[in-house]
Amino acid sequence: MNSSPLIDQLIEAFKCLPGVGPKSAQRMTLHLLERNKHGGQKLSESLARALENVGNCSRCRTLTEEETCRICASLSRNSKICCVVESPADVFAIEQSGTFRGVYFVLMGHLSPIDGIGPEQLGIQQLLDKTQQESTEEIIIACNPNVEGDATAYFIAEQFKSLQVKVTRIAHGVPVGGELEFVDGGTLSHAFSGRKVMDNS
Amino acid sequence: MNSSPLIDQLIEAFKCLPGVGPKSAQRMTLHLLERNKHGGQKLSESLARALENVGNCSRCRTLTEEETCRICASLSRNSKICCVVESPADVFAIEQSGTFRGVYFVLMGHLSPIDGIGPEQLGIQQLLDKTQQESTEEIIIACNPNVEGDATAYFIAEQFKSLQVKVTRIAHGVPVGGELEFVDGGTLSHAFSGRKVMDNS
Repeated sequence: MNSSPLIDQLIEAFKCLPGVGPKSAQRMTLHLLERNKHGGQKLSESLARALENVGNCSRCRTLTEEETCRICASLSRNSKICCVVESPADVFAIEQSGTFRGVYFVLMGHLSPIDGIGPEQLGIQQLLDKTQQESTEEIIIACNPNVEGDATAYFIAEQFKSLQVKVTRIAHGVPVGGELEFVDGGTLSHAFSGRKVMDNS
Repeated sequence: MNSSPLIDQLIEAFKCLPGVGPKSAQRMTLHLLERNKHGGQKLSESLARALENVGNCSRCRTLTEEETCRICASLSRNSKICCVVESPADVFAIEQSGTFRGVYFVLMGHLSPIDGIGPEQLGIQQLLDKTQQESTEEIIIACNPNVEGDATAYFIAEQFKSLQVKVTRIAHGVPVGGELEFVDGGTLSHAFSGRKVMDNS
């Protein structure tokens, strides 16, 4: 028997978060109620506001509350180079690395016929249209390096075959800072087949 | 550069939860916006409702939205036995074990003069009054088994010396299901000094 139905409901609600089980949900609930009511208030409000206003960017499909997202709208980005990723989280990761100055296209998933996710759901036609409208010069495919991501990457490359667009895919290989000993076989074989000449000139 | 200020705000707001850093906060935000808007809505509403309505039980000080909590109000609980704990989370843990059928008193902390937490903040006077009003027969102290918890337990026991109330403390010892090899020295010495005669009669 817990002491309060509202607390039970809140614990239950916290369980919808990824990686949050009954224990963490209870800890979060009690933390906010006992020690951080202000933070809880802010969380509740931010969440309601984001859920109400955030939709998809009309150009790149990432999550934004505006018609076009801040990256698509920025004048300092090179719209001739478009990086295709599976999810907004990938955009965050690439932006945090600070290596890419082009624009994005977010598939919001990967090909998965069993779940009813085909080219239409991934907005492939929209990507083709955007490429022609913005006369994109290079499409960099950065789908996840797994079976579904590979299938999606090959499918997209196929669609662009007849167009005058260079299609590339980010390199697979040994992660920087890792130790060879702990790298899996698939990654190692990719690293070998993708080896480069060391040019010391 | 992220794609949306509202998303940035929501990520920031999630960081107020215990054990949630920037990566988890981002994952939670994107999960709710991409895949579980309904769950997010419910979370936002439950949180707002709980923050607005939940206060402390007038009898045991635990968190509840009612005047007296469900445990204090229950007729099936033995109000002659009162378990003193540090926080509502302890009430949850003891209730889940299902071993205790008495009522609680929640200190909402432990003695900590450096943080300005003295007997007044812990409601010791309220505990003494409650004990006399409800003619409690036994006070079971279940403060945490650490320095602050020990100090608090001794202090409370001291207050009850002049009254006709039995004061006990839950046993310290080797946790059930653990292995002796991995139990710390403090716990082992408690386990030895608290040893019991094995009665096979």
